Amino acid sequence: MSRVSYVNGRYYPHSKVSVHVEDRGYQFADGVYEVILIKNRYLVDEEPHLDRLDRSLQALEIDWPMKQASLKHVIKEIINKNKLKDGIVYIQITRGVAKRDHGFPKKSKPTLVITARPLLMPHLNTNNKGAKVITIPDIRWKRCDIKSVSLLPNVLGKQAARERGAQEAWQFDEEGFVTEGTSTNAWMLDTDNNLITRYLDEAILSGVTRLTIIDIAKKEGIKIVERPFTVDEAKKSKEAFFTSSTSFLTPVVQIDDVIIGNGAPGLLTTKLLASYLRYVDCPKSNTLIS
Amino acid sequence: MSRVSYVNGRYYPHSKVSVHVEDRGYQFADGVYEVILIKNRYLVDEEPHLDRLDRSLQALEIDWPMKQASLKHVIKEIINKNKLKDGIVYIQITRGVAKRDHGFPKKSKPTLVITARPLLMPHLNTNNKGAKVITIPDIRWKRCDIKSVSLLPNVLGKQAARERGAQEAWQFDEEGFVTEGTSTNAWMLDTDNNLITRYLDEAILSGVTRLTIIDIAKKEGIKIVERPFTVDEAKKSKEAFFTSSTSFLTPVVQIDDVIIGNGAPGLLTTKLLASYLRYVDCPKSNTLIS
Repeated sequence: MSRVSYVNGRYYPHSKVSVHVEDRGYQFADGVYEVILIKNRYLVDEEPHLDRLDRSLQALEIDWPMKQASLKHVIKEIINKNKLKDGIVYIQITRGVAKRDHGFPKKSKPTLVITARPLLMPHLNTNNKGAKVITIPDIRWKRCDIKSVSLLPNVLGKQAARERGAQEAWQFDEEGFVTEGTSTNAWMLDTDNNLITRYLDEAILSGVTRLTIIDIAKKEGIKIVERPFTVDEAKKSKEAFFTSSTSFLTPVVQIDDVIIGNGAPGLLTTKLLASYLRYVDCPKSNTLIS
Repeated sequence: MSRVSYVNGRYYPHSKVSVHVEDRGYQFADGVYEVILIKNRYLVDEEPHLDRLDRSLQALEIDWPMKQASLKHVIKEIINKNKLKDGIVYIQITRGVAKRDHGFPKKSKPTLVITARPLLMPHLNTNNKGAKVITIPDIRWKRCDIKSVSLLPNVLGKQAARERGAQEAWQFDEEGFVTEGTSTNAWMLDTDNNLITRYLDEAILSGVTRLTIIDIAKKEGIKIVERPFTVDEAKKSKEAFFTSSTSFLTPVVQIDDVIIGNGAPGLLTTKLLASYLRYVDCPKSNTLIS
């Protein structure tokens, strides 16, 4: 079956779906996006994703291209047209097409792009032996709380990880504190069993999976500490992992050249992943695609 | 006459020129660009622009989509098809279309987009009373030497300037030193008649006009000092201006709430602009569109 994608009110075969070269997303990275997981025909955490999309749009003063209720309808349509059971839906909104000029155009109609594709559930996709991460200086801009398409440094960081045989790169700020991965949030468990992840500030994205894991951990009586941790602390941690909507919770077994714990996914990490998988399967928290 | 634009080997009416939504330029800002001035059917400083394009591509490990000689041919074609005498040509190269994934795709064909449009020469376009600039923290990434399309912070900075009745925003680093404008390089003349502009580092773009002005100033016996200057120094300067390929050399007469000099374009600034205009009109340094 061929993929179907959506741009500005119309559905197209995926191979034909295009935007004008003067779309400000293309010339200025002047746009935002979201990726939402589809699991067994449920949209996982649709509401928090759309809330974050709203915050990103507001931060850039880009108008909603349509009402949220209409957007939800199009999302369902695109999933149905692509006959997806498990997968992801990608939503991108830019400031639209305008004569090239850095400042905002006086009038422009936001561009809305929606695509969807199958995804093998990440916990089934790996051999479950855990991931290696490298650490690199965070060279990104200072508003990483906005989920913009201005992702070039993330691209370079992820590529650096790949070239060193790693799955992710953890970025650290000028004081040596880990901010986040190039497309994931970073976590560690210290030797006193405190589960540590950076608090929300303008240096990191508020991950939807991050918030869910905090909720789950709290319910399970795990002590959560939201504070920055250093690369050094992470290397001495008992366990470590990273989270995102498309990678779920991935155990980290090596940071640079340092093996974490005994080199296998940690016990708490494994337990939290199991809880997260139950959460993802729980229809109450999610939206059924009818 | 309707505009003609170029994408990947073909010319299209400008209204129809598009790229796939999974072009990495659109989803990741994974691309670079150049803007070259056309003056009286001459391409101004084509070589240094293409050299910089080469450096940007190399920094991101993006292949040239065609040989430089072929690119020069297409640039001439697009100018001829658009019947331009005075204007600009815009060249964008991205890593191309690939299934969305942060790291570099194993195989992708770079996308080449070329557009052109008329431009009223900037020194004729203003009332020559000089510009106001505001100052804002530099929140951009740490590789501003690469001329990438990752321009969202520049967009927000330019917009902030507009909303405060200014033409440009000068960005300053954490130590209070001016890096550059959102689309221009920054200059000041101190009370000892030293012409000061920041040295090249990863915080600023190596402006082609910046280099030309340095050359001209040296020939005219002006003392050039390439070093960072603070916002405070700039506010106490005798003269100030900014440079770019499309704005030439624009006198600055106000920085935030501080009037520079006597509030009119400075003498040295005016002299340098006149010299630059002669340079732009001199066919020897440029490429005739035949």
